[in-house]
Amino acid sequence: MKRVSSFFSVFFIVLSASAQSQKPTNIIMVVGDGMGPAYTTAYRYFADDKSSPTIEMTVFDRHLVGMASTYPARTSGYVTDSAASATALSTGYKSYNGAIGVDANKQPQQTVLEWARLKGMKTGVAVTSQINHATPASYASHNEYRRNYDAIADSYFDDRVDGKFVLDVMLGGGWKYFIRDDRNLVNEFKSAGYQYIDDINNLGSLDPKQPVLGLFGDEGMPWVLDTQSQPRLPALVKTAVYHLTNDKGYFLLVEGSQIDWAGHANDVASAMAETHDLALTLEWLESYVENSPDTLVVVTADHSTGGFTIAANKDYRWDPEPLKTLKASLVTIATQMSASDQPYKTAESLMGTTLSEKEKALLAKVEIGDIRALYTQLKRIMDLRTNTGWTTSGHTAVDVQIFAMGKGAQLFNGHMDNTEIPKKIFALLGKP
Amino acid sequence: MKRVSSFFSVFFIVLSASAQSQKPTNIIMVVGDGMGPAYTTAYRYFADDKSSPTIEMTVFDRHLVGMASTYPARTSGYVTDSAASATALSTGYKSYNGAIGVDANKQPQQTVLEWARLKGMKTGVAVTSQINHATPASYASHNEYRRNYDAIADSYFDDRVDGKFVLDVMLGGGWKYFIRDDRNLVNEFKSAGYQYIDDINNLGSLDPKQPVLGLFGDEGMPWVLDTQSQPRLPALVKTAVYHLTNDKGYFLLVEGSQIDWAGHANDVASAMAETHDLALTLEWLESYVENSPDTLVVVTADHSTGGFTIAANKDYRWDPEPLKTLKASLVTIATQMSASDQPYKTAESLMGTTLSEKEKALLAKVEIGDIRALYTQLKRIMDLRTNTGWTTSGHTAVDVQIFAMGKGAQLFNGHMDNTEIPKKIFALLGKP
Repeated sequence: MKRVSSFFSVFFIVLSASAQSQKPTNIIMVVGDGMGPAYTTAYRYFADDKSSPTIEMTVFDRHLVGMASTYPARTSGYVTDSAASATALSTGYKSYNGAIGVDANKQPQQTVLEWARLKGMKTGVAVTSQINHATPASYASHNEYRRNYDAIADSYFDDRVDGKFVLDVMLGGGWKYFIRDDRNLVNEFKSAGYQYIDDINNLGSLDPKQPVLGLFGDEGMPWVLDTQSQPRLPALVKTAVYHLTNDKGYFLLVEGSQIDWAGHANDVASAMAETHDLALTLEWLESYVENSPDTLVVVTADHSTGGFTIAANKDYRWDPEPLKTLKASLVTIATQMSASDQPYKTAESLMGTTLSEKEKALLAKVEIGDIRALYTQLKRIMDLRTNTGWTTSGHTAVDVQIFAMGKGAQLFNGHMDNTEIPKKIFALLGKP
Repeated sequence: MKRVSSFFSVFFIVLSASAQSQKPTNIIMVVGDGMGPAYTTAYRYFADDKSSPTIEMTVFDRHLVGMASTYPARTSGYVTDSAASATALSTGYKSYNGAIGVDANKQPQQTVLEWARLKGMKTGVAVTSQINHATPASYASHNEYRRNYDAIADSYFDDRVDGKFVLDVMLGGGWKYFIRDDRNLVNEFKSAGYQYIDDINNLGSLDPKQPVLGLFGDEGMPWVLDTQSQPRLPALVKTAVYHLTNDKGYFLLVEGSQIDWAGHANDVASAMAETHDLALTLEWLESYVENSPDTLVVVTADHSTGGFTIAANKDYRWDPEPLKTLKASLVTIATQMSASDQPYKTAESLMGTTLSEKEKALLAKVEIGDIRALYTQLKRIMDLRTNTGWTTSGHTAVDVQIFAMGKGAQLFNGHMDNTEIPKKIFALLGKP
């Protein structure tokens, strides 16, 4: 009998310890916007050193736990936009494409970030889009339409959760929405005690005791390919974590926003560079979680963009090498070509490789003054060099991966609908 | 001290029970050829009843555990063919595209099926391709080139493992390789005690005590869309399991081979119908494993085919409804149109829907006698109706999913390279 009772006591100690140990103090939700399975797979080969015998696992590979379906509410069919998907991820409610934190009946629904706020946790967003773009907005605002950018920006100042501002830390782009003729939200936030910076190189100068508004672009931030010597998403996230850390914990929403924008543009160069920026962020979070094991990091995508495929045109080949020598984004190369006396030399210098005669012929098909057409031709050249395929400038419905690390990560194992992710987070945060 | 020792005894009982309980008696390895993440996702929406409020999980969703990278040996780049990938899955060795059960140096490597055979287990293959096609061949044969079909067929009779034939049960297609002018392998197998059937309706007549060769097509079996009233992969698998079941266990390789063929043809109608045939097989296996919990079923794909995307052309829409009324495969519809006095009426009857004027105009662009051209136009019509995208008639490198059920299923959680799958199976089968 003694043996039996000690068996049960061990059993219950193990059980209750395991339930206890699943409750993280801090939750970092990371969205790779548009980052479907082809992006993370391609990234492995982009990151591969061809001169080494083996292909290394990436940070995504090390933390894959499951996959999620992304379909919106019935009324929008099977292919989601970023707003409906972010709303599913933030509230647990399926909604129509365009919805920001509201359900299919346009009713506002509480988000995991707001619930964390209600619980007394600190909250933040760190993104490479404008901070009032679909994904961060779906966590921190409620609006029936994603393009009501001014109203969403206003709500960041006007809304209160339990008498407090919704967000302690806001890092990303968005000057044109926060500094307007009709309203200057930057000044309003400053008057309310927020410190404001507009130079990303000043992240280190912030006072950790004050809330933060940092805006680093008119809409989104510049492409990472154009700012290779400057801090980017990893720096935003480090800063956010530094400012949010406190005894009651925090909820931070991180977005690698421009993976999606590269996908919409069918621009494989920026698709890989922006995914790399997110991967570096995750590598930093990986070491952060090792030292702060009371933190849960969940990473997923809202959908996949562009119908990106790793190989195309009958050819069993994908070659990321031409992407590795780029010194600027393709749109910047097009812009500089357009202004150059020697456009091919300019292109070759910024691409880090020579143009073949066939490639020069492709570029010669368009007017040198037409930056958009040049950009299209440069993308075509990179698609041919890498043998990349695209099927759309919009989204596709393929399931996306879930990656997780830290306390409670195992809860996200296997297949689930994207609405299950916030439901699990709500449960971890003790929502009844 | 008593408490401590009983703690440890409980601990070790639990540990050893868990190690013991992971060793399955039977292993069923299932390959959905070409079935990348877009296929299983699209299948959920293909299987969805639009009149119901919710979208149901599929058998794939219920058993998703991880994902696998599929890249071949360095010499073949990042995009695998079915042979290199099946060799990775059967032996744990990366090899070059085209390799059948041989490593990158063309050296034969033991397969999990052969090891099972050596251990005294029964073995079988049940596939919808010819049984000597790349995937089954990579488990049961060794050849430096996948297109040496006759040599591979010969090896099924000529090779021995521990003095026995490699396979107890062979079900699939392949008359032209097994009944040849230079050699009649069917007669040789019959003389050696195998029962032979060539009519799939006779699966039920087989004697469970004798080994089986069942061939149901010249190369592969007919498209499932053309044989809707006949037994297909679920029937082959039920028969194989029935014949293989024995006290020492069995290893069965199952392949939904023609998902890949539909992908190569960029034929969304057969892509979904062939995925459905595999899903029905998995649903049967799901109930089988419930009743035979000493069985492990591992399901994966060797790669993804066609650059299939769920939506295309800027449009946030994918509509599987037009695929649900088809009464024949698109190639059969083209063939019957070509022989018909009223080709559009024939098409409409077999498609179960009317053709729009725009669709008739697309068909009118090609000669009515040109079956291949008609097939291409019918595929185009289905792509437009469903808004499906494709980027290649070959393969792409996107990671594939791993699904698992039964004893030991949890070993396949998370991301792994495809070579890890046979390594885990070898370990479960006690290979040192």
